[in-house]
Amino acid sequence: MRLSAGLDKIFRPKSIAIVGATARKGTIGREITHNLISYGFTGKVFPVNPAAEVIHSIKCYPSILDIPDEIDLAIIVVRKDLVLNVIEECGQKGVGGVVVITSGFKEVGPEGLKREQALMERVRHYGMRIIGPNCFGVINTHPDFVMNATFSRTAPLEGKIGFMSQSGALGEGILNHARKLGIGFSMFASVGNKADISGNALLDYWRDDPATQIILLYLESFGAPETFTKIARDITKIKPIIAVKSGKTTAGARATASHTGALAGYDIGVDALFDQCGVLRVNSIEELFDLAKAFDQQPVPKGNRVAILTNAGGPGILATDAAAGIGLDVVRLDPKTIEVLKANLPPEAATGNPVDMIASATPDQFEMALDSLSADQNVDALIVVFVPPIMIDEMGVADAIIKTRARTDKPYLTCFMGPGEGSAGADRLKAAGIPVYTFPEAIANTYKMMVKYSSWQKSPAGTFPLAGPGVAEVRESLVKMSEAGKNMVLGGEALDVISKCGIPVAPLWAAKDMEQAFNLAEVVGYPVVLKLEAEGLVHKTEIGGVIPDVRNDTELRKHYKTLMGRAEEKQIAGARVVVQAMVKGGVEMVLGMVRDPQFGPLIMCGLGGVFVEVMKDVAFKLPPLSEEDALEMLQHLKAKRLLTGYRGSASMDLKPLTDALLTLSRLVEDFPLISELDINPFVVCADGAKSRAIDARIVLDGRAV
Amino acid sequence: MRLSAGLDKIFRPKSIAIVGATARKGTIGREITHNLISYGFTGKVFPVNPAAEVIHSIKCYPSILDIPDEIDLAIIVVRKDLVLNVIEECGQKGVGGVVVITSGFKEVGPEGLKREQALMERVRHYGMRIIGPNCFGVINTHPDFVMNATFSRTAPLEGKIGFMSQSGALGEGILNHARKLGIGFSMFASVGNKADISGNALLDYWRDDPATQIILLYLESFGAPETFTKIARDITKIKPIIAVKSGKTTAGARATASHTGALAGYDIGVDALFDQCGVLRVNSIEELFDLAKAFDQQPVPKGNRVAILTNAGGPGILATDAAAGIGLDVVRLDPKTIEVLKANLPPEAATGNPVDMIASATPDQFEMALDSLSADQNVDALIVVFVPPIMIDEMGVADAIIKTRARTDKPYLTCFMGPGEGSAGADRLKAAGIPVYTFPEAIANTYKMMVKYSSWQKSPAGTFPLAGPGVAEVRESLVKMSEAGKNMVLGGEALDVISKCGIPVAPLWAAKDMEQAFNLAEVVGYPVVLKLEAEGLVHKTEIGGVIPDVRNDTELRKHYKTLMGRAEEKQIAGARVVVQAMVKGGVEMVLGMVRDPQFGPLIMCGLGGVFVEVMKDVAFKLPPLSEEDALEMLQHLKAKRLLTGYRGSASMDLKPLTDALLTLSRLVEDFPLISELDINPFVVCADGAKSRAIDARIVLDGRAV
Repeated sequence: MRLSAGLDKIFRPKSIAIVGATARKGTIGREITHNLISYGFTGKVFPVNPAAEVIHSIKCYPSILDIPDEIDLAIIVVRKDLVLNVIEECGQKGVGGVVVITSGFKEVGPEGLKREQALMERVRHYGMRIIGPNCFGVINTHPDFVMNATFSRTAPLEGKIGFMSQSGALGEGILNHARKLGIGFSMFASVGNKADISGNALLDYWRDDPATQIILLYLESFGAPETFTKIARDITKIKPIIAVKSGKTTAGARATASHTGALAGYDIGVDALFDQCGVLRVNSIEELFDLAKAFDQQPVPKGNRVAILTNAGGPGILATDAAAGIGLDVVRLDPKTIEVLKANLPPEAATGNPVDMIASATPDQFEMALDSLSADQNVDALIVVFVPPIMIDEMGVADAIIKTRARTDKPYLTCFMGPGEGSAGADRLKAAGIPVYTFPEAIANTYKMMVKYSSWQKSPAGTFPLAGPGVAEVRESLVKMSEAGKNMVLGGEALDVISKCGIPVAPLWAAKDMEQAFNLAEVVGYPVVLKLEAEGLVHKTEIGGVIPDVRNDTELRKHYKTLMGRAEEKQIAGARVVVQAMVKGGVEMVLGMVRDPQFGPLIMCGLGGVFVEVMKDVAFKLPPLSEEDALEMLQHLKAKRLLTGYRGSASMDLKPLTDALLTLSRLVEDFPLISELDINPFVVCADGAKSRAIDARIVLDGRAV
Repeated sequence: MRLSAGLDKIFRPKSIAIVGATARKGTIGREITHNLISYGFTGKVFPVNPAAEVIHSIKCYPSILDIPDEIDLAIIVVRKDLVLNVIEECGQKGVGGVVVITSGFKEVGPEGLKREQALMERVRHYGMRIIGPNCFGVINTHPDFVMNATFSRTAPLEGKIGFMSQSGALGEGILNHARKLGIGFSMFASVGNKADISGNALLDYWRDDPATQIILLYLESFGAPETFTKIARDITKIKPIIAVKSGKTTAGARATASHTGALAGYDIGVDALFDQCGVLRVNSIEELFDLAKAFDQQPVPKGNRVAILTNAGGPGILATDAAAGIGLDVVRLDPKTIEVLKANLPPEAATGNPVDMIASATPDQFEMALDSLSADQNVDALIVVFVPPIMIDEMGVADAIIKTRARTDKPYLTCFMGPGEGSAGADRLKAAGIPVYTFPEAIANTYKMMVKYSSWQKSPAGTFPLAGPGVAEVRESLVKMSEAGKNMVLGGEALDVISKCGIPVAPLWAAKDMEQAFNLAEVVGYPVVLKLEAEGLVHKTEIGGVIPDVRNDTELRKHYKTLMGRAEEKQIAGARVVVQAMVKGGVEMVLGMVRDPQFGPLIMCGLGGVFVEVMKDVAFKLPPLSEEDALEMLQHLKAKRLLTGYRGSASMDLKPLTDALLTLSRLVEDFPLISELDINPFVVCADGAKSRAIDARIVLDGRAV
């Protein structure tokens, strides 16, 4: 069954019962009834309230069971202790969907949770769908299904945006602000406690709704991130999803035993998740509107090359700074464009990019310049910044913008400043579907996000590698360790595990005594690394337990003694010295995995070595990783310059690194037992055959066996 | 003479002549005359135009010389070719100040520049002051000197803000938007080409103007950064300066020969400059207004601890995220506060911070909560987020906010969302001087900047160290090198220069042959570093010309041969091997200096070694550095964790590092000849006596001898 099954009964009902309707001003029951009727619901409305005979001139029934007609949707606004009984009656009546506005459920604690569970038991029993409880209602603006079943004081405009809000108050805030900006919605839902219908079900529903072309989400939490990923990845190829995710700072600190864990802030999972499914995350409600306006009214630019046209120097510079500063290409114009501009503008005008036509620019000059710029093959998108001077016909400029926009398929975003702000000219543009911003900075950011979306749409589906070797063998040894009560696998043992999974490691050999250390070093070949190992010795670097670059027997003797001395001094039981081949001339990276309580596993890659937590040059993604994902992680690192050849050094062979990431990605899915894992360092060499994991740490979660 | 001498004639004139006044609609001459009169100029206005007898019912004179009265200020709006003549007449008339609106001067190229120079010659001859040319005019709103000598279509409100704009169009944009927000100005000046009066003169003027309590700057360029620093550093201790600096991306790439140069982006100087003189830089006009509103109407918070009060969950979370995310402390409330809240709010309310009183919160509850929160000693500033529910008296909540604010000296910033946006309640708050924001994110950023300003105000004046040793000796050797045509001083020679200035270096000794290398290594003590040196060999690391950690004679022999072989292979003339002591166990930092064409010298400090340009973990400041400045630079680095003890390593002695920075700061002032300088690495050790500069590079600018 699809997640969205039955949602038609909620969003396209032919009949609605309002249980708890009243005529008393200042009550929610009255507001909802009033909104449904005054917004022009296309079906039949049945108020239900045993204490009234008529509400809003409509016959009122004592119970939903008394209504002679079939009921698709029940809106429930009764007291919290009455909800369960009403739900039962809805079930008996054969209602398809219910929207429970009433609060006092899961959100108020254990007692409310019990109330919500009892309610859901009934809902499931009758096979109904439910939005809420503790929500603000639902809206559909489609002419065939007009319905405003909220207590909002703002009636939304019809439009292309499907909007889901996890907060009723914020939902109303956004509806209200959108109305001021002239932005319309296709549907709206406040999901409240998400007892049944969540954002995922709505996404699934809106995917196939032709009226919904853009999806806005206000999220405070994720119920099922994997489902979200799957649905969103699919939708974003055809419709943009813009999301505000709040609740970043509520989780507090988590105890972790790995670098990966320490570096994965609470919010890392959200960013990784959104990035991997093409969802555009915005940082403020302001930005949400900036984007919504543009996606709503303009095509997505094909690339990041912008042309800026203005009649005012300062604002033109502001726009250029903002665009270039955010990574847009304030592109060099085609010489032919410049020629046309020069021929038609006064000599004081600047005909580069930005094009500053100076204050005297007429509507005709705007038209000429806009036509030339939008015809320029170097240009993907236009920014128009206009400050109306006294002697210029502002409406003429607005018309020039509208006319030329109709002749091109490139997007326009505009800014009318000074006397242009909120002027008749700006209003004319808005009415013609050309977004107007107060200041140019918002335009730059909006185009940047549109370009990001455009590259996402063009990006190929990922290639996922086949399963690797060694699963059964590895599982057996992990389970054995876990059953022995071990929760931290270190050094040689950890390297052994990842080696069995197919990641190349620099093997370690434990030396019984100094004599054996000499023999091992000879076999491995100098230089070697000496390390102190002992059961549970986690911080060996911190106590000086790692000595790299030991070059000969003399040095080995000295350092062996030092290490064993240190073990004695620190009273480390069962300490031994291990010998490892030294991998030289590569770049030290770190790879790792941690399980986020909300998002599940996250894969990390970054600059490794001892400074990993200082520099924090790391990237995260959610598994499963595709080959493209693994490469893209490297693109996000400053350290990528080290990998691709820096200051005369050779370019590194990235294959062993990305292979190791892909193996990690499989590993975490195959072994829920592994709760955290670090490989640090993984030395990447120019000759891929020499790349090696040097040290590793695996944290086991016994409960997950 | 003070920079602001004579400005009273411009901003507080008793009589104004408008040369070029007209009565024809749609001309600037008409608009200025109209604005002056309709805005209620407190003095006498004399229109000047040989073609008119009367303008705006005022007698018009053919020339300024024909006016019988004394003239303080002339506004010039005549054709560009007539300006010089008018200026001459102004001089003869004894006019104190002129504002030249007319454009067509420096901004249009060489011919305009000549016109401007001729004009300035006359202005100086007569000892007048001039604003412009190519400007938008000036405004004073003070009741005793009311004057709007601009062609703005927005009449500004009276207020506390002095506003300077380098762009006329942007100036008008800001005046207009401010009027919409109810923000007033004390004075305004559009400075145009800044031929005489620049931002610095205005700052100097506004420093002592009691009506001006806040200064806003829109800057595109700096004329005299040193003067700006001096004046601004002084003003910001008593009045905030908020600046938008644009033109970030106009400079393009510069060729540099040092890391410091490569890392100093064009805009680094601006940030360093603003930071060092307490100027608050904002990134957008939107943000400019957010701040202006708050500084205009609320006290500066004493610290960064905020309390958030709301009646709506989602918006409360948004506010919390924004505040915590930007580094404000969403503080733990005093237990007594929580007790009071618990006693007066329903059990569903959240009484931590944020305080969510839920939708049912009454005006009385708002009053109680606001009084408790503002009395809480843990709280420095309050954020109120209100979404008016149907049943709650919005005006009552507004009144509760106003009343309680009057009883505390802590700042309030508020957000009225949903139906509260632009509502009567929000209007009542605005009228009472309580800033209202559309969404909570802007409040968080505003408080952050206010807190930044508050710490700046409290920060002590810097301590500047006395001059160091060796100046005369160093100068002699630098001049000698420069005269010999050398522009790049490397290795031993460069270390020698900085050593003479008092920076500890690890000395280098050149070995004639292998035999001498053995002797040197013995003197220095193993391990040593071997380096290839030759005149002009800049990229020795890149060609493998540095071999660290050479431990004994055998290794020395091998590496000596390798290096000489490499020199032969690369045909490096005059190559020799130098021997240097190896400094172990410290942190490799980079120090440096570069001269920015606009700001002059910049001092850099950051994480050094081979990855300096990859990690870009660096901080810049303008000299002269105080001891506090030097320490603060380290605070900006991620690498500071390495310096203060990381993963069991000891904390480093910072004194040699900050001393070296202070020496650098003096060096660049003493020796204009040095155009760029890198010390990389400078190894900082736990035992300060062991810290050393290991390598250095000095670029000489022969023209500066």
